[in-house]
Amino acid sequence: MTKKIGYLGPMGSFTEIAAQSIFPSGERHSFSTIPACMAAASEGEIDVAVVPMENAIEGSVNMTLDYLIHKHELPIIGEVTVPIEQHLLVHPERADAWNEITDIYSHPQAIAQCHEFIQTNFSEAVIHYTNSTSSAAKEIADNIDYNGAAIANSLAADAYKLTTVKENIHDYDNNHTRFALLSNTEKPLVFEESEKSKTTMVITLPSDFSGALHQVLSAFAWRKLNLTKIESRPMKTGIGNYFFVIDVEKEMDDVLLPGVIAEVEALGCGVRILGSYPCLFSTEMEEMKKKPVPK
Amino acid sequence: MTKKIGYLGPMGSFTEIAAQSIFPSGERHSFSTIPACMAAASEGEIDVAVVPMENAIEGSVNMTLDYLIHKHELPIIGEVTVPIEQHLLVHPERADAWNEITDIYSHPQAIAQCHEFIQTNFSEAVIHYTNSTSSAAKEIADNIDYNGAAIANSLAADAYKLTTVKENIHDYDNNHTRFALLSNTEKPLVFEESEKSKTTMVITLPSDFSGALHQVLSAFAWRKLNLTKIESRPMKTGIGNYFFVIDVEKEMDDVLLPGVIAEVEALGCGVRILGSYPCLFSTEMEEMKKKPVPK
Repeated sequence: MTKKIGYLGPMGSFTEIAAQSIFPSGERHSFSTIPACMAAASEGEIDVAVVPMENAIEGSVNMTLDYLIHKHELPIIGEVTVPIEQHLLVHPERADAWNEITDIYSHPQAIAQCHEFIQTNFSEAVIHYTNSTSSAAKEIADNIDYNGAAIANSLAADAYKLTTVKENIHDYDNNHTRFALLSNTEKPLVFEESEKSKTTMVITLPSDFSGALHQVLSAFAWRKLNLTKIESRPMKTGIGNYFFVIDVEKEMDDVLLPGVIAEVEALGCGVRILGSYPCLFSTEMEEMKKKPVPK
Repeated sequence: MTKKIGYLGPMGSFTEIAAQSIFPSGERHSFSTIPACMAAASEGEIDVAVVPMENAIEGSVNMTLDYLIHKHELPIIGEVTVPIEQHLLVHPERADAWNEITDIYSHPQAIAQCHEFIQTNFSEAVIHYTNSTSSAAKEIADNIDYNGAAIANSLAADAYKLTTVKENIHDYDNNHTRFALLSNTEKPLVFEESEKSKTTMVITLPSDFSGALHQVLSAFAWRKLNLTKIESRPMKTGIGNYFFVIDVEKEMDDVLLPGVIAEVEALGCGVRILGSYPCLFSTEMEEMKKKPVPK
């Protein structure tokens, strides 16, 4: 049966790139907010929700963690990392004289990420903010604005048949976004090419923040377990109360991680496992682009 | 001399609330992106930049830290915490029959934050996304859309003379955003009512992540220094390389923090101080609202 894959839209978003790279034959459904996408997975309307976890373009990322921790019991079944590559796109008829453009269209965050490129090359351009990078591409395609260019990704360029006149115009190289795959019906993904596994846990601390955190990390350190992320997040009970989100580079096992959990709980901390899952990369971008983009 | 205060706009944004609460008599300048606001402070066009650091509505927050660490040497001279309170606003002539509204206007993140309220009360409403919460308020005011309501903050309600028909419709209480005040000309703020001081440091680790982090935290723990935030962030040199942003509840002194720094550097880590500054709260909201809002 074809799986229903929900993603943070609109069509052509980086989240859709993540969804398409892992579930190329899935039936993709666009959601306009992260909570709406997660609610649909919770209520069984879709099989998997794909939402940004870190460093996303569209939407807040704190939001994903907050709703995962406070609202929905949706296990993380996989993670996919997508390179965030922004390109300058123009209408094909404008491709030869693209450096004469006077107007640039994109989402505020993409505009911000390409701040230096714009300052250097188009410091006089009028900036038009759109709701997403792909809606900027759509605007250029629909209106045939000969004076305008969109900043968006390659999926949007293909979807709206625009010409990419300048690739990778974002300020930073090596800019990636991690997306979480959430589902309470699907099992954690197992991919042969999967390079490593990860377990995400949420730990709430007793009152003494720094001493307790130091003790918690001892439980990982003496087992030589590698952490790839640690982040304090405010509890929703007011300023000054915190919990930690920790990513361990290890799948759930029978000895080491249960040992950590028992020790940490003995310290008076609360522990919740958000998921144990493989970490994947969307390396098949080139192949994806050859496939027809759904309307 | 009147200080020039730059903030992440548009007018009526939560960042403007932060700017206004700390510099009520400053000359406020709106910037459309975080990097543009920080660049203006760097180049001396403004005296202080006010940008979101954590849990913001408008714009990404990772972006502020990234640009602070990689692009601009702008010390943090203060921090201000603002409660994020979203209200349902309608045209005054519509105030009596507001529950008949059919259209809701706001920024995608504000819509997401009020997901449950909308589902419960206006599940059939058509959602219109705007570039900011305050531009949603402007749209309702300008177009006199009798069927529409905006989700925005109280500053926007006042600026556009809308009626607040339902207060605090966001899903979570106790939702705050921290804003950083950045300046390389102004000294760190000193306020009599300041409750506590904080020092923000960036620590880069040698290769062994979890063991090294555990050792770094020892330097704070045995001095009983309280951390209020710890966050791993990717270096811009590729996936898998990390540094840490740590907030210590202590102003820079002659003994304890220099001791931490010396110990941590002896472990082979890099240390950079982003600022040592007071933490303030925008408690004067009610008073602010009585003042005229600049056009």
